[in-house]
Amino acid sequence: MTTVAKIIELVGVSKVSWEDAVENALAEASKTLEHITGVELLNLTANVDQGKIYEYKVNLKLAFRVER
Amino acid sequence: MTTVAKIIELVGVSKVSWEDAVENALAEASKTLEHITGVELLNLTANVDQGKIYEYKVNLKLAFRVER
Amino acid sequence: MTTVAKIIELVGVSKVSWEDAVENALAEASKTLEHITGVELLNLTANVDQGKIYEYKVNLKLAFRVER
Amino acid sequence: MTTVAKIIELVGVSKVSWEDAVENALAEASKTLEHITGVELLNLTANVDQGKIYEYKVNLKLAFRVER
Amino acid sequence: MTTVAKIIELVGVSKVSWEDAVENALAEASKTLEHITGVELLNLTANVDQGKIYEYKVNLKLAFRVER
Amino acid sequence: MTTVAKIIELVGVSKVSWEDAVENALAEASKTLEHITGVELLNLTANVDQGKIYEYKVNLKLAFRVER
Amino acid sequence: MTTVAKIIELVGVSKVSWEDAVENALAEASKTLEHITGVELLNLTANVDQGKIYEYKVNLKLAFRVER
Amino acid sequence: MTTVAKIIELVGVSKVSWEDAVENALAEASKTLEHITGVELLNLTANVDQGKIYEYKVNLKLAFRVER
Amino acid sequence: MTTVAKIIELVGVSKVSWEDAVENALAEASKTLEHITGVELLNLTANVDQGKIYEYKVNLKLAFRVER
Amino acid sequence: MTTVAKIIELVGVSKVSWEDAVENALAEASKTLEHITGVELLNLTANVDQGKIYEYKVNLKLAFRVER
Amino acid sequence: MTTVAKIIELVGVSKVSWEDAVENALAEASKTLEHITGVELLNLTANVDQGKIYEYKVNLKLAFRVER
Amino acid sequence: MTTVAKIIELVGVSKVSWEDAVENALAEASKTLEHITGVELLNLTANVDQGKIYEYKVNLKLAFRVER
Repeated sequence: MTTVAKIIELVGVSKVSWEDAVENALAEASKTLEHITGVELLNLTANVDQGKIYEYKVNLKLAFRVER
Repeated sequence: MTTVAKIIELVGVSKVSWEDAVENALAEASKTLEHITGVELLNLTANVDQGKIYEYKVNLKLAFRVER
Repeated sequence: MTTVAKIIELVGVSKVSWEDAVENALAEASKTLEHITGVELLNLTANVDQGKIYEYKVNLKLAFRVER
Repeated sequence: MTTVAKIIELVGVSKVSWEDAVENALAEASKTLEHITGVELLNLTANVDQGKIYEYKVNLKLAFRVER
Repeated sequence: MTTVAKIIELVGVSKVSWEDAVENALAEASKTLEHITGVELLNLTANVDQGKIYEYKVNLKLAFRVER
Repeated sequence: MTTVAKIIELVGVSKVSWEDAVENALAEASKTLEHITGVELLNLTANVDQGKIYEYKVNLKLAFRVER
Repeated sequence: MTTVAKIIELVGVSKVSWEDAVENALAEASKTLEHITGVELLNLTANVDQGKIYEYKVNLKLAFRVER
Repeated sequence: MTTVAKIIELVGVSKVSWEDAVENALAEASKTLEHITGVELLNLTANVDQGKIYEYKVNLKLAFRVER
Repeated sequence: MTTVAKIIELVGVSKVSWEDAVENALAEASKTLEHITGVELLNLTANVDQGKIYEYKVNLKLAFRVER
Repeated sequence: MTTVAKIIELVGVSKVSWEDAVENALAEASKTLEHITGVELLNLTANVDQGKIYEYKVNLKLAFRVER
Repeated sequence: MTTVAKIIELVGVSKVSWEDAVENALAEASKTLEHITGVELLNLTANVDQGKIYEYKVNLKLAFRVER
Repeated sequence: MTTVAKIIELVGVSKVSWEDAVENALAEASKTLEHITGVELLNLTANVDQGKIYEYKVNLKLAFRVER
């Protein structure tokens, strides 16, 4: 059996924190992908209004096994 | 409702210009992806013959919302 | 009306956490800049003494609209 | 006389093209900066709706002489 | 007819060599993708036990034509 | 007296958070290194199972003075 | 017969546009190089006076076959 | 009291050496900025005529505290 | 028990191939390091004489667990 | 006697392997360059058909002494 | 006999110049390392007070042979 | 008249200093190239023996006009 992993890039968002944005992306991705094995954070940004962050954003790479 | 964006990499081509290559990639991608929100140009190259460009190529990242 | 954004680099510090350092930089910057729209984290470092972090530092890019 | 140049980062936008976005940023910046000598394009992105670009964006570095 | 290429990132593994890991990823990917045109190696790593490599891993980008 | 600093790369892990992974690495390193002065985060990754992070990992650079 | 390609870096200039600067570099290079096969844009800059671009510059890599 | 540092990019020039170009930039900047704390060299270039350097140029980042 | 990994950079050499250079570095390192878990190739170079490679060199990162 | 080295970029190709592509580039270059001293691999790619690699390509930097 | 080189990162400081900072790091390192073969400068920074540099700092990589 | 600049990479060496290594490369290059206009330093390294630098090396890019 050959094992190959695929890596995709997602953007997770959250009103709370960057860690929550990562978890949101993971939760959403795991609805359709069964074998997620890891994430790597690429870029942390945020949208700001009136000097306050109202949306945390994380670009992340997500790896999942492709099993057949 | 959780919003997550996915980012994919495409290569658009054109006989006319790099901007046209971007538009071709967008037009093609929008046939199957509903919620494209943005593009980022990564790499501009071209194939040349007899000292003239005959094919413009653009590597681009394309973001689209994954809504459920 | 032409809209242009300007991007500057700041270093925020905090005794508590990197997220707090980001908020400090934002709070300070918003005293003199009206239309801050976003931040991007560049580099997370910390000063250490006796094996403990006593100062969290974040290099960040901050974007604000220049409206006239 | 000592000559020093300063380099700042701007984001220009346009509904027409990336080159127009550069020119918009330049035109806006030259209202307050007298001695702009050059620009360097950093990043070309665009916002998309219905498969069409409606806003071209360019991150650029702009150099100007600081003369005293 | 518009031609667009898509680029995805995979991780191939092998007990034999990095070149074999590339071939495994290609063989696996070509089961579901018809028009693979090229690969680019991104990152070569290996898992080690007792001073010996027991798993070669290659992160690679794979391009394939999207024809319609 | 000549002061030189040495910089080493560590990977800290935690079941709780990336910040805790940094602290774990620092606590461990400070058992054998006396004069740690700072850390720089390089890369944030995590291992995932069933759509949940079970191990946070941080690659970090750690600086310490070499005094003689 | 062995085929090897050589890659050189050029700077093209134009009073009109960056695309024209690429074409100028290509036209000039093709006077002495027979088998140019492609170009890759590296860096787009411009010289500015009075808030207007008067010289577009492109650093580009140019590939040509070395045939014997 | 919140302390934030700002980082700007300058280009210093000198007819003598790159180190002199750094000092020139610092001397010029310190006329208007009170709390400069550090510099980082980014890029060393030079203009050449007849095989001799006649102008040394340094792109540098300069950090200064913003105190209120 | 806290687990931390340390990452060091080595240069392996071989008269045979780059893969052999990696194995040499691993074999040498495993004489003094017990818990090597992985390698990452950074840079492949070679010394050449008379148009032939006589020494293959690999810069690699090597990770090992620090257990206490 | 002043010694200067020049560095050029080549693309070697092979139907067999990436190492063979390096050797082909070296063999070809050494026909016209006398004092090649080293190579550095930059980028490994391959052209693929039917899920099989039919052309290995290596971008490499090649250093040679310029002696006078 | 297998030869492996190890590469470490140091920070040298000096009140005089960046070149002196490199020499200080080398002098200090050579007290404990016998077979240092080369250095590579990574990053040149300086601490500033009153518009004058009072401490030059160099991050450098240092290679030494590990012979057994 | 079309003006194009060509950019080549050289390695200059010196027993004295990095600045001298740059000048050596320039002096050597200007024997065969008429219109050198600038240099950019890429990488500063040195060979070391007994804890002392005996050869300074600079990788640099050199630009020269190609006039016809």
